[in-house]
Amino acid sequence: LTVAAAAPPRILLSTAAAERLGQRIGAAWGGTAPTFVLAEQVAPGADFDLAFMTRDVTGGSTKYQVLPATQHFHDLMRNAPSLRWAQTHSAGADRPVLVDLMRRGVTVTTSSGANAAVVAQSAVAGLLALARHFPQLMAAQRDRRWAPLPQGALPRDLTGQTAVIVGWGPVGRQIGAMLSAAAMQCIAVRRSATPRADGAVETVAFEALADVLPRADWLVLACPLTDRTRRLIGAAALQLLPQGARLVNVARGEVVVEADVIAALRTGALAGAYLDVFEQEPLPADSSLWILPNVLLTPHAAGHSDGNAERAAAMFLANLTRWARGEPLVNVAA
Amino acid sequence: LTVAAAAPPRILLSTAAAERLGQRIGAAWGGTAPTFVLAEQVAPGADFDLAFMTRDVTGGSTKYQVLPATQHFHDLMRNAPSLRWAQTHSAGADRPVLVDLMRRGVTVTTSSGANAAVVAQSAVAGLLALARHFPQLMAAQRDRRWAPLPQGALPRDLTGQTAVIVGWGPVGRQIGAMLSAAAMQCIAVRRSATPRADGAVETVAFEALADVLPRADWLVLACPLTDRTRRLIGAAALQLLPQGARLVNVARGEVVVEADVIAALRTGALAGAYLDVFEQEPLPADSSLWILPNVLLTPHAAGHSDGNAERAAAMFLANLTRWARGEPLVNVAA
Repeated sequence: LTVAAAAPPRILLSTAAAERLGQRIGAAWGGTAPTFVLAEQVAPGADFDLAFMTRDVTGGSTKYQVLPATQHFHDLMRNAPSLRWAQTHSAGADRPVLVDLMRRGVTVTTSSGANAAVVAQSAVAGLLALARHFPQLMAAQRDRRWAPLPQGALPRDLTGQTAVIVGWGPVGRQIGAMLSAAAMQCIAVRRSATPRADGAVETVAFEALADVLPRADWLVLACPLTDRTRRLIGAAALQLLPQGARLVNVARGEVVVEADVIAALRTGALAGAYLDVFEQEPLPADSSLWILPNVLLTPHAAGHSDGNAERAAAMFLANLTRWARGEPLVNVAA
Repeated sequence: LTVAAAAPPRILLSTAAAERLGQRIGAAWGGTAPTFVLAEQVAPGADFDLAFMTRDVTGGSTKYQVLPATQHFHDLMRNAPSLRWAQTHSAGADRPVLVDLMRRGVTVTTSSGANAAVVAQSAVAGLLALARHFPQLMAAQRDRRWAPLPQGALPRDLTGQTAVIVGWGPVGRQIGAMLSAAAMQCIAVRRSATPRADGAVETVAFEALADVLPRADWLVLACPLTDRTRRLIGAAALQLLPQGARLVNVARGEVVVEADVIAALRTGALAGAYLDVFEQEPLPADSSLWILPNVLLTPHAAGHSDGNAERAAAMFLANLTRWARGEPLVNVAA
C-alpha cells in the first residue's frame, strides 16, 4: 500500500470526531493539513480519500438495524469515488457496508484489540456469575429472601474445570489468562494447532474442535466471524458437550445456530449461557433467550468501556502516520 | 499438644458424617478403632474426646440464628467434660460456641483454606459483575429491553484500577492472582508490612490501611474477624475512599459498620457493593441492602461448592493422624 504523500487527504469524520481529534489528526499526518469532510454537512456523492467511522457514528445502530445518522455515513462511504481506506472503531469488519467496501477494493482496517481486555473481562464476569449461581441468588435478593443454595444444588467446584476457548486472538488469550488464574484448564481452538509462542496452553485447530468439545465444561466463543466460524456451533457441536456444560458467546451471534442453542438450553443439555451477541440485534422481544433460566444476556455491550474511544483513536492515528509514510497499515480486514 | 495415643478417642459426629467418613476416620487414627458418638442419639452430658462439626450439622443455621439440630450439637460440645479438640468445617472460628470452647481450653481447629478458591472466585465474580454493570443490564433483560449503556454511562476501564485487598491469606492471595490477571493493581493489607515471599504485591500493615484507601477503586475484604478487623471499615475509612469506589465483602459482616456502608451507598460515595456477609444473618428483611441500587447480595454463600465437604474431611483426617501421633495440629484457632 503506497500513497502520494504530497497530497493531503480528505478525511470523512463525524463533526464530533473532528472536534475531538482534528488537531491530533493533523499532527499524525505530518504534512500539509488534511481536509475534514464533516459527515453531517455533506450529501452522498461528496468525495474524500479516507474515512474514520467512530463509535458516535454507529451509536445505537446494530449490524441489522441501522439508524438514519449511521445510514448517512454508510451512504457517504458507498458513494465516494476516491475512497481508498476506511477505519472502523469496532473489532470486526462484518458490517455489510464494510464488506461491500472491501469488495470494491477499499482497504478496511479495524480497531481489533482496542476493547479486547474489556470483552475478556465481560466474558469472565458472565462465566463466574453463572458458575456461582448468581441468577438464582439475584432472584432471591429481589424477593428479599435469604436463600442459601441447598446441599443438593451447590455450585460445582470451578477449580479444575475445563474451558474450550474458540478464537485465540487478544480476547481469547486474555480470557485464558484470567481463567488460568482461577485454576481452570484452558484449551485454545484457533486456525492452527501450533500453540502460540506466548503460552503453553493446549491448542487445536478449528477442524479438531469436535475432539475437544466432550471435555468442555465451558465453551467460550471469542473468534471473529469468518466463513470458517459461521454457524460453527449448532446441534452437532452442542451434542458433543458433556451434560450440563455452559456456553459463553462474546464473538458474534452467527457463530452459533441460535435455535439449536435455545433447544439445548430447554432440554438442559446446556445448563446455562452468557450471551452478548445474537443472530439478530436488537434481540427480538419474543426471543426465548430473554427468559430462559440460567441465561445471562447483555446487549452487545461486552466491549463497552470509557477507554475505548481513546484506544480506537490512537489506533487510527498510528495508521494515519503509516499511511502518510507509505507503510503497511495495521489491522487490515481480509 | 500431645496425647496418650494408646486410648482410642470417642469422637462426636453427626450420623451422616459417621456413615460417610467412619472407615476413613478409623484408618486415619491407625490404632484401636475410635468410638463414634452419634449426635442424634445422645443427650447433653454425653462424654467424648473429639468433635468434628461438619456442614450438615450447621446446615441452615447462621452464627446468629441457630436451628435446633445445630443447637443440640453445640450443647453436646459445651457439656462434654473430656472434650479436648473440636474441628469445624468452616474457615473461621468466630461462632460463639467455638469461642466459648476455646476459653474453656478446648483446642479448636478450622478448615481454613478448604473453600478459599471458591470464596475468591465469588469475590471476583461480584467485582466483575459490578464493573461490567450487570445489575442494570440484568434489569433490562428481565424487561426484555435491548438497552446498551449510553455513552455517558459507560463502565470504566477495569485495566489499571486498584484493588486494596484486606487480608492476605489463602482467599486474599487468590483474589489478587485473578485481579492481576485482569491487569488490575493490587495492594495487600495484612498483619505485617513485609510482603509474603510468594509475590511481589505492594503490602502494608493493617495500621497503614488509611494510607492506601485513597487509591482504592475497590476495597475487598477477605480477612478473618479478629479484634483488629472488627468494625475496621466504618465512616472514617469509607470517607478516605475516592468518590465512586466500590466494596466487596467476603470476610465477615462485623468487619464493616453496616450502617455506615448503607449511608455511603445512599450518598453515592460508594458506587456499589458485593456483600456476602452481614452484621446479622439472615439479613433482616427490612434491611436497605436488599434493594439499594448496585448492591449484589448473596446469603453467606460465597464459599459454597460441591467439593468443600471432601476438602474439609481430608483436613480433619490429616489432623486426626497428627493427633494420634502427638504432632501439632494444623489450623489451630487462636
